[in-house]
Amino acid sequence: MKDFTEKEVSSQTVYEGRLFDVRKDIVSLPDGKTSDREYVLHPGAVMVVPLIEPASVLLERQYRYPLHDHFYELPAGKKEPGEDPSLTAKRELLEETGYVAEEWQHLGTLHPSVGYSDEVVELFLAARMRYEKQNMDEGEFLEVSIVPLEEAIEWVKARKITEIKTILGLFWLDRILRERAQSR
Amino acid sequence: MKDFTEKEVSSQTVYEGRLFDVRKDIVSLPDGKTSDREYVLHPGAVMVVPLIEPASVLLERQYRYPLHDHFYELPAGKKEPGEDPSLTAKRELLEETGYVAEEWQHLGTLHPSVGYSDEVVELFLAARMRYEKQNMDEGEFLEVSIVPLEEAIEWVKARKITEIKTILGLFWLDRILRERAQSR
Repeated sequence: MKDFTEKEVSSQTVYEGRLFDVRKDIVSLPDGKTSDREYVLHPGAVMVVPLIEPASVLLERQYRYPLHDHFYELPAGKKEPGEDPSLTAKRELLEETGYVAEEWQHLGTLHPSVGYSDEVVELFLAARMRYEKQNMDEGEFLEVSIVPLEEAIEWVKARKITEIKTILGLFWLDRILRERAQSR
Repeated sequence: MKDFTEKEVSSQTVYEGRLFDVRKDIVSLPDGKTSDREYVLHPGAVMVVPLIEPASVLLERQYRYPLHDHFYELPAGKKEPGEDPSLTAKRELLEETGYVAEEWQHLGTLHPSVGYSDEVVELFLAARMRYEKQNMDEGEFLEVSIVPLEEAIEWVKARKITEIKTILGLFWLDRILRERAQSR
């Protein structure tokens, strides 16, 4: 396998924001030339696939200002600095949906925007859930509903669900449930 | 369904970059309070799932500086201003892999980072392909390989593939091939 590593020549914070910073680095390329790389510094996030047995999920519906539209999404949220992602997952699931899960599984580590962000998303499966009490952050507005997985996948095909982490979580769960069924 | 629309009070470009700009808007929330929304303005992109019949895909391996690592990815690229996404898809597939496809299908419209970017990705399936000639942009370094879909999905589980659009494309193809097999 070839090594295409790009080496940092210099690095500069070109924007400091409330939600994220932007950095611009000069890098040396594998052929010795230089180029610049501009990218968002992101604190990292989690997403939860909350399974309501046997084959439904909790979906949230909320407004996403950058795209000026409402979106159906699996529960997700940004990490607090230094927070263990499994704690972020439990916190976000409880705050946004009011549910607590007895069974947790770390499914994978995802990179949503490798071209222009260092964001890392940890993906968790939550199962054997019970409702406790929703406790949203101030200024957070969302609706929660229980949707059968097959119906949610129909929504993907009908472009009613377009948020990419959510689609991924639904397909991932689809594969898990199918493999469980086959191994029985 | 409730309306959680956030209305623009004011809008300001807070960073102008080479790859993207950042905008910061003051918005009024559903409860009448105000907040700010900070987001990347992105030109839009495409991703291609290149099917090598009966059940393999083309994968690229390249270095992604924001995460300081090499990634396996399906072919993807940014749109030129005003470009029809189906043309971007054909262009990127040919430039990066050297392949031309006779059969194209638009699978869906994806939103990778609804919280902090207006990026839209159009997803295409490319089939009945033949190799013509790779023609990469200057400063673009990548390796192309043909990987059986089942092996690629094993790579997802083993965290050897973590780029989220790529995982999504692999799962989407998995479902398409399964549904075709069932309908026979």
